[in-house]
Amino acid sequence: MPAETIRLLISCTDTRGIIAAVSAFIAQHAGNIVELDQHTDDSTGWFFMRVEVEAEGFGLSRLSFGPAWSPLAARFSMDWSVRWGGDLRRVVILASREGHCLHDLLFRWKAGELACEIPLVLSNHEDLRPIAESAGVPFRCVTGPDKSEQEQTLLRLIRESRAELIVLARYMQVLSPAFVAAYPNGIINIHHSFLPAFAGPRPYHQAFERGVKLIGATSHYVTESLDQGPIIAQQTAPVGHRDNVQSLIRKGRDLERVVLARSVRLHLNDQTIVACNRTIVFD
Amino acid sequence: MPAETIRLLISCTDTRGIIAAVSAFIAQHAGNIVELDQHTDDSTGWFFMRVEVEAEGFGLSRLSFGPAWSPLAARFSMDWSVRWGGDLRRVVILASREGHCLHDLLFRWKAGELACEIPLVLSNHEDLRPIAESAGVPFRCVTGPDKSEQEQTLLRLIRESRAELIVLARYMQVLSPAFVAAYPNGIINIHHSFLPAFAGPRPYHQAFERGVKLIGATSHYVTESLDQGPIIAQQTAPVGHRDNVQSLIRKGRDLERVVLARSVRLHLNDQTIVACNRTIVFD
Amino acid sequence: MPAETIRLLISCTDTRGIIAAVSAFIAQHAGNIVELDQHTDDSTGWFFMRVEVEAEGFGLSRLSFGPAWSPLAARFSMDWSVRWGGDLRRVVILASREGHCLHDLLFRWKAGELACEIPLVLSNHEDLRPIAESAGVPFRCVTGPDKSEQEQTLLRLIRESRAELIVLARYMQVLSPAFVAAYPNGIINIHHSFLPAFAGPRPYHQAFERGVKLIGATSHYVTESLDQGPIIAQQTAPVGHRDNVQSLIRKGRDLERVVLARSVRLHLNDQTIVACNRTIVFD
Amino acid sequence: MPAETIRLLISCTDTRGIIAAVSAFIAQHAGNIVELDQHTDDSTGWFFMRVEVEAEGFGLSRLSFGPAWSPLAARFSMDWSVRWGGDLRRVVILASREGHCLHDLLFRWKAGELACEIPLVLSNHEDLRPIAESAGVPFRCVTGPDKSEQEQTLLRLIRESRAELIVLARYMQVLSPAFVAAYPNGIINIHHSFLPAFAGPRPYHQAFERGVKLIGATSHYVTESLDQGPIIAQQTAPVGHRDNVQSLIRKGRDLERVVLARSVRLHLNDQTIVACNRTIVFD
Repeated sequence: MPAETIRLLISCTDTRGIIAAVSAFIAQHAGNIVELDQHTDDSTGWFFMRVEVEAEGFGLSRLSFGPAWSPLAARFSMDWSVRWGGDLRRVVILASREGHCLHDLLFRWKAGELACEIPLVLSNHEDLRPIAESAGVPFRCVTGPDKSEQEQTLLRLIRESRAELIVLARYMQVLSPAFVAAYPNGIINIHHSFLPAFAGPRPYHQAFERGVKLIGATSHYVTESLDQGPIIAQQTAPVGHRDNVQSLIRKGRDLERVVLARSVRLHLNDQTIVACNRTIVFD
Repeated sequence: MPAETIRLLISCTDTRGIIAAVSAFIAQHAGNIVELDQHTDDSTGWFFMRVEVEAEGFGLSRLSFGPAWSPLAARFSMDWSVRWGGDLRRVVILASREGHCLHDLLFRWKAGELACEIPLVLSNHEDLRPIAESAGVPFRCVTGPDKSEQEQTLLRLIRESRAELIVLARYMQVLSPAFVAAYPNGIINIHHSFLPAFAGPRPYHQAFERGVKLIGATSHYVTESLDQGPIIAQQTAPVGHRDNVQSLIRKGRDLERVVLARSVRLHLNDQTIVACNRTIVFD
Repeated sequence: MPAETIRLLISCTDTRGIIAAVSAFIAQHAGNIVELDQHTDDSTGWFFMRVEVEAEGFGLSRLSFGPAWSPLAARFSMDWSVRWGGDLRRVVILASREGHCLHDLLFRWKAGELACEIPLVLSNHEDLRPIAESAGVPFRCVTGPDKSEQEQTLLRLIRESRAELIVLARYMQVLSPAFVAAYPNGIINIHHSFLPAFAGPRPYHQAFERGVKLIGATSHYVTESLDQGPIIAQQTAPVGHRDNVQSLIRKGRDLERVVLARSVRLHLNDQTIVACNRTIVFD
Repeated sequence: MPAETIRLLISCTDTRGIIAAVSAFIAQHAGNIVELDQHTDDSTGWFFMRVEVEAEGFGLSRLSFGPAWSPLAARFSMDWSVRWGGDLRRVVILASREGHCLHDLLFRWKAGELACEIPLVLSNHEDLRPIAESAGVPFRCVTGPDKSEQEQTLLRLIRESRAELIVLARYMQVLSPAFVAAYPNGIINIHHSFLPAFAGPRPYHQAFERGVKLIGATSHYVTESLDQGPIIAQQTAPVGHRDNVQSLIRKGRDLERVVLARSVRLHLNDQTIVACNRTIVFD
């Protein structure tokens, strides 16, 4: 059982002394750094850092951290966030009819791989109700002829569940810009191709048509531009001439599961920072 | 030292009895099949077969094979080809300024991995002359302000070298449709991305811009449509936020070498059949 | 929905004319070969073949096949088997306390990836009962102080279930030689290392101790010699210095699931032949 | 062209304030940290850090660094090393008759992938002389009936070349403990299997015998115990029943090249720290 840690994520313009200032601040409050990962981007001159501090013995609380930290953050004009590892995020999963990603996420969650609470599964079909309910998670099917009304219902349910993260586990509806804007860098999608190849619908059919020798899966934060958001994780697997669309779909499911689960886990462990439509992944 | 074999490649509309007829024909001529690989494409009803027969003891010669085989081929309206493994193809390599693929191919050739002769290396720059010449292969640099004239010179040199296969080992000029038409399924190119992603120029720059988490390389037969030909092999490798364009280029070189060498080898071993803009690879 | 096929597996000493004789036999009975894969092993002179024939229109039935085929099989002293694809095998899964492989197999089975029936899950612990039962599969926990008696009960239950294949999905008990002998090439195990490295207990602990940079999983047919049986599939994944035993276990679960499922699928599709402690895999 | 950096490697017992002290020290000397990677090992309580500082503007020189740094190093009982990136190591390569690794390393070196000088290639055979000499590197063949005398000659030549790193690029002689002791963590070997599987001679023959479904390559620092040293990098590739020992050897060469080159590169970039027979790799 690993000890609880506090995760601090920082991005700002690079300059001398940031690490010294941050680590002095932590030392000054009796913090023990157990993991520090830092990266400066050559092309933009942007500085990124993730620091993990032992919660036990640290001299600041959730309440006192902000006031103590603010002057330093202001000095370097930081974008920053802090989270006590034990404060589990609430995650809502949206899915349509394909159950493999949902099933996989729920199993990993039960096995302790995903540090979160999952108060709700939402869908536009009834098919996956048994998967959610057998894991003890409430399931709501939201349909209706009016897309905008349907989305309003989804948003309301998500808000009521106090979710901080939305996972699209093969949810086959396009979300409106307004929906996406409500959760910046807070919606993770799995796309069943190695983006930017085969964006849009039916990627396995497109892959088959093109005769590629590998298929892929891509997880990304959702932005207004369909399949264009910052990529979190990608993986490919070899295929051959014996594969037809059905076997591509079958083989792809294994990729989708692993890639989506990895992304959700990275997000929940505060290992991602989004900047300039790319995702810094500290793993 | 493996014994010499005869490789027979067949494609035709699927129907009952093709394998029986072919294998009976081979048995009738005292042939021993050492490898038979067959595939029927569900979606097109097309039949593909590769048969490898021990040369020793086989009752037909290069001269007598055609007349003996023709009736059977006609009966099934086959596209077919036959080749005695010992009849080495002549291969001309074209490259520009990046030497890693040329260098790799020449080393593999010397090490006995590629069953061919390499009578000539062509380039539009002088840079790679030492690589070719230190491997004992003549090098010709063909430049000039008139692209069409330059291509005519290339074509003439290739014809004079009696090449059956042209390998574009990072040759950065686009070949004209007329050039391509002169060598149908006889030109192999390496493109430095996982096609169809990042077709066209500067794929590593495109990949960096998009923030992908893997890079790739694709080898394909060259057709009139740039980067659209039938794919022979593809491979990807993981990258991360610490990579810049330079490190993508460096990491990509390892993929390009392996993918191109694999394709050339498959072609030389008569393990590929092109049909409907895809490549059947019997390996 | 692919059409039903008949799968014929053959191994015998290589000689001229086997393929001709087999394909003539099939053609003579109006069979259409949809897939033929053949391999001759250089080092042993052994011949292996898998033939898949469309069931529709084939002139032999389950009953008439044997008598018609026997003379040809005798002529080449073949080891052979035939199976109509629609005749689903009955598979019993054994597991202990780790549920990921069981869970995964049952999900794939429900999703139609595994062509079999699963009449029973057996375990030496109660932990996984909910996983089996929520998939609608009976679960029996067999424990007791006397190992031999416990095994007798297992064997009896497996026989009563008329299982043809036993899958050890992280079953942590060693089976006796007598048990193994009752199901030759009929028991598939998943071992959580890239065998032959880290055979025996606690492979992830061994891997951590050795400081390897990749972990693996291996599925194999069970023989009398622990972790020594013919390997069906293997896969590895990169790890690093940030991994501890717990994260190796977590990452390894993804490999174990995929490798075991692949092996079970290959077996169920009659794509494996065991010879000389190695597995020929026609895929 | 990336700017020159200074690389500082530190390991010591973990305690509060190390990062703060180090980064304050660097800030105090006007250093700009461009990369900082840190890891604390749970199981041993050991702290590891790599810091990369821009050389330009840094207030300490090669001469003044040690005296300024020593008090801080003493305070935390650090093992540490510092290197100005522009101070290229001298590397001697040893090889026997297989030239692929040597050829690859020399090509990468010429292409600027390996920041070092290569003053000498040593061998116990004449075969690879042309590879070394065509790259402009002196080649010395050291043979003789007396193994110990031969090793003395090697050691003398290596010392005279002022090498800091010895790369065994398929050098097929076992080095004596005395030789190894002269270059602690300064000799990198490539072994052609995924260690600990198939240690010792003829690993591809062993792999073929065992019927594995993947082959591998492992690079490691050489210690007194054969094939037991701290692993730097490993990679595997799939193989199948169609592979014989020859094709395993051929496919393995691609792994060996990439794995060895990666290790040498990591070492030259000061990205490795050895502790407790494992290699921390900051990449």
